[in-house]
Amino acid sequence: MGRHGILSIGGIEKTRELMNVTLGKEKADLALINATILNVYTGELLEDYSVAIKGEWIAYVGNDPEDTIGPHTHVIDATGKTIIPGLIDGHAHLVWLYSASEFLRYAMVGGTTTIITEIIEPLYTVGYNGVVDFLASISDQPIKIFGTVPAMVSISKRARGIPKEVLKKLLTRDDILGLGESYWQTVIKEPEEYLPIFKETLDSGKRLEGHSAGAKGEKLMAYIASGISSCHEPINAEEVLERLRLGMHVMIREGSIRSDLDSISRIKDSGIDLRRLILVTDGIGPEDLLRKGYMEFVVQKAIDCGFNPIHAIQMATINVAEYFFLDGIIGGIAPGKYADIVIISDLKTIKAEYVISKGRIIAREGDLLVSPRKHTSSAQNLKSVHLSRVLEPVDFSIPVTKEVSQVNVRVIEQVTGLVTKELIVSVPVIDGEIRSDVSKDILKVAAIDRRFDPGKIFVGLIRGFRLKTGAIASSTAWDTPDIIVVGENDADMAGAVNRIHALQGGIVVFANGNALAEIPLPIFGLIADMPLHALVQRIEETKRGIRDLGVPFDDPLLTIMTLTTAAIPFLRICDEGLLNLKDGRTVGLVID
Amino acid sequence: MGRHGILSIGGIEKTRELMNVTLGKEKADLALINATILNVYTGELLEDYSVAIKGEWIAYVGNDPEDTIGPHTHVIDATGKTIIPGLIDGHAHLVWLYSASEFLRYAMVGGTTTIITEIIEPLYTVGYNGVVDFLASISDQPIKIFGTVPAMVSISKRARGIPKEVLKKLLTRDDILGLGESYWQTVIKEPEEYLPIFKETLDSGKRLEGHSAGAKGEKLMAYIASGISSCHEPINAEEVLERLRLGMHVMIREGSIRSDLDSISRIKDSGIDLRRLILVTDGIGPEDLLRKGYMEFVVQKAIDCGFNPIHAIQMATINVAEYFFLDGIIGGIAPGKYADIVIISDLKTIKAEYVISKGRIIAREGDLLVSPRKHTSSAQNLKSVHLSRVLEPVDFSIPVTKEVSQVNVRVIEQVTGLVTKELIVSVPVIDGEIRSDVSKDILKVAAIDRRFDPGKIFVGLIRGFRLKTGAIASSTAWDTPDIIVVGENDADMAGAVNRIHALQGGIVVFANGNALAEIPLPIFGLIADMPLHALVQRIEETKRGIRDLGVPFDDPLLTIMTLTTAAIPFLRICDEGLLNLKDGRTVGLVID
Repeated sequence: MGRHGILSIGGIEKTRELMNVTLGKEKADLALINATILNVYTGELLEDYSVAIKGEWIAYVGNDPEDTIGPHTHVIDATGKTIIPGLIDGHAHLVWLYSASEFLRYAMVGGTTTIITEIIEPLYTVGYNGVVDFLASISDQPIKIFGTVPAMVSISKRARGIPKEVLKKLLTRDDILGLGESYWQTVIKEPEEYLPIFKETLDSGKRLEGHSAGAKGEKLMAYIASGISSCHEPINAEEVLERLRLGMHVMIREGSIRSDLDSISRIKDSGIDLRRLILVTDGIGPEDLLRKGYMEFVVQKAIDCGFNPIHAIQMATINVAEYFFLDGIIGGIAPGKYADIVIISDLKTIKAEYVISKGRIIAREGDLLVSPRKHTSSAQNLKSVHLSRVLEPVDFSIPVTKEVSQVNVRVIEQVTGLVTKELIVSVPVIDGEIRSDVSKDILKVAAIDRRFDPGKIFVGLIRGFRLKTGAIASSTAWDTPDIIVVGENDADMAGAVNRIHALQGGIVVFANGNALAEIPLPIFGLIADMPLHALVQRIEETKRGIRDLGVPFDDPLLTIMTLTTAAIPFLRICDEGLLNLKDGRTVGLVID
Repeated sequence: MGRHGILSIGGIEKTRELMNVTLGKEKADLALINATILNVYTGELLEDYSVAIKGEWIAYVGNDPEDTIGPHTHVIDATGKTIIPGLIDGHAHLVWLYSASEFLRYAMVGGTTTIITEIIEPLYTVGYNGVVDFLASISDQPIKIFGTVPAMVSISKRARGIPKEVLKKLLTRDDILGLGESYWQTVIKEPEEYLPIFKETLDSGKRLEGHSAGAKGEKLMAYIASGISSCHEPINAEEVLERLRLGMHVMIREGSIRSDLDSISRIKDSGIDLRRLILVTDGIGPEDLLRKGYMEFVVQKAIDCGFNPIHAIQMATINVAEYFFLDGIIGGIAPGKYADIVIISDLKTIKAEYVISKGRIIAREGDLLVSPRKHTSSAQNLKSVHLSRVLEPVDFSIPVTKEVSQVNVRVIEQVTGLVTKELIVSVPVIDGEIRSDVSKDILKVAAIDRRFDPGKIFVGLIRGFRLKTGAIASSTAWDTPDIIVVGENDADMAGAVNRIHALQGGIVVFANGNALAEIPLPIFGLIADMPLHALVQRIEETKRGIRDLGVPFDDPLLTIMTLTTAAIPFLRICDEGLLNLKDGRTVGLVID
């Protein structure tokens, strides 16, 4: 019966216990009394309210809790305080260098009690067992984490498309709420590949998450007609409004990929119904997580941008719960719902004094009181970087068989730290090969398969990266099972990739035959096994190392990781070649 | 996978067609152009908008429909008009004397395009095959009708409780959206009976419909903790607010059972979030249907009561769709949704000029253009009134075995046309039996099982019915498979019941050995097989006949039918005895 088990979680025993407390036959375990409560269902602030909790659940909400309180009830007097539902991140990417348990240490203290995350990364790099292992790492934690089935939209033909049996198995899980983001261009271009997957998901009663960056008008409508019901990609109020009008639920993104709240917040002045607006991070990087926090930062920013605080909190609680059909168990403070509650000083200050998740006080004044469960990955997932051989500099040469002195090539032009475009350049052929030319900022970029055909390599060219010497490589490369490497010389490119192989995953800055900085990522080749603060220190060292080599981008790690994604325009690379997202064709470097 | 098939209805072919129209490769079948459109997602009125429809579905919504219109597209110029989504009745009782097809003729012309109905009545009277036959009668109609599984809360022990295998079979159907109303007192009193059924329903991803008439405070919370998520029983703004605050979706009832909009409409001034308010009829009787209309009457009344018309229409469209997890296919005008659209002159006048359902123009200016499908019931359902024998007057005698001249008895006191209470009265024993005493307005009332143990009878007493002579009997008796009869004398009581047996269902007014008026109800013993206007004429004759015999109630048919229900307080009757809803015990007439 699929996810729906989640709606009856706790079952008959839960209901019996709650009824007993409510009807005065048993006493509550925990009670928050005399608070101002935000009722997200009605949008009211109600004074002098109390909440009584039994086990993981809310039994009572009202202003006369006496009968529910006994000698063993832990009573928190919240006089003068405000209580709000636990915050929900409706679209996250938890595979972001940190381990789940380290991420949770920092997410939990701020008041987030539910997360819906993409889980695509382990499926690209390891396959079904990887996803199951990742799901195990986020299950049974002090807060609730749900996933969406990876739609497997990839520029790599081999990695693309989720096998039907994997889709079916994942859709039956209670911790899976839908199909993850399906990039709109691909869906419109290849409906025959995606529509059957969409149908399977809708048949299971779950949601189709969208990704309609830049789409508008007829194309956006065609995409929506497929059953897609959300999008987290709009970057301004106009794009939000167009999507809302077409029946989408719109997620406003404020995270480490993009920070759209400022621009979108104008929508608050439009007077429209905001029930379908949702606040999300779309993933938060280790540094932001450490320094800014998580959903409490996002909600605070929404308030600071001028949203009515009640609306801002609704956007991170009930609106999300309703979108995912979860409002029966989360999203508000009412009998029968999970006791997920945050105590704050006042409605405009989203700073958790207490965080209560599933009835437990998990954090107080920024201190974690309950530790996340640490998951041990299986051996398979700790050995996921496969290469058939030690790479040699010659693996990175670009031979030209024709006897010519110049050839036209497709170069990835790095327009910003994320966006690229296709540049046609005439380059010299020297000794039968194309070489990088640091004087013109034309460097080599290579993608090496580490899963299906280990060591299979495609070498292209990139401009705008500004690396002066050495090479930078990463075993985390969005939407592919590839290692990605950009280098000024072939020897350091080979050295960087071999170092990643030795580490069984990582990001490596390599020059003159030595690793200058590195971040080991042993889990799936994607995730570090170290405390967050240590990871952040490593990241900073690595970024410094990269900047020292001349690369100017704000987050050069993100720049290199995203060279392989179909999510950001326009020219991308994988071990199969170059792919221009405008026409969706995979092509080689040299234009014949 | 249960109901969820409904969310992918139309499947891949639908999406492909819509995409083709939206992208300009195919032309629309129908287009409404130059309208003012109510966008229920944002709550905006948008000028100069057009909608293009392909097959049953909306392909395009915007202000530049040119590319979707071809030479064969039927174009309706809606300049100066307003278009709104088709109306939805979120809680109906379609088994109300009329047949489904007759009901639909009158419901469709007003702009209702989706109905969610209880389907409990055929289950009481015939069983599973009856429900399936009824579901067949409402399926494949010009508008969409969904049902909820009967919770089978009954005062009759034999009729009570839905068999688990029936529950499971019904929950897997696409046309079943949840479990029907479960009266709160029963759930709190007998959680062991209802909680397993609730769990099964939640596991299937469907909704638990509530019925919390008069509940408040701790008891209401205990009821809600069971997972119940809606209620259509509040009768004033305070009761609505309490339920909304506790996380319920609240249905405002405006129909033939009660008319609560006037009283509840005060809530519009509270400034609360109205997203969880829903307009419903809770069933509309034949006369109201003929004279007032259906959901268009309810929405108009909400507007006349002072609700913002946009909110009023949201309450009958998107709010309902979201509650039942159906917003992917109905509730708003957007690509991929059913083309269920009503054209009205302006937002304050809910009078359908065109009704479009599943892409077809089904009505225009009050004229029906598409006929509902007429269903032929199976023989079993046309022969459902079983009696083991011809009843004799003596069957209605109330013998007293003790040799006493007076006994205390429990009398059903008719407080209003619907509400009853228990009255303890001392009555004389004459010739070893208790007799009716018209001078004191103490009459006999009997319930006769027509299904499990045909002819099993319980005879009680009723005061306040004011029948001066004869008897009134009905084979439709809420929540039981009983025939109910109230009479001034035993011979006419027997005559009335025997006449119902001969008719195989009906309502009969009988005096001096003759039927004075009658409504034949051959289908399940509940439903007439005649045009609505003829039925209404029969009903009026019957009511006149009853009034001529002295009965004062506004709707004496409803008074007699509801004598057997557990939904209305306090003292009720079935073939097993009397049941006081305050303590839930079944007792006899005489107090020992």
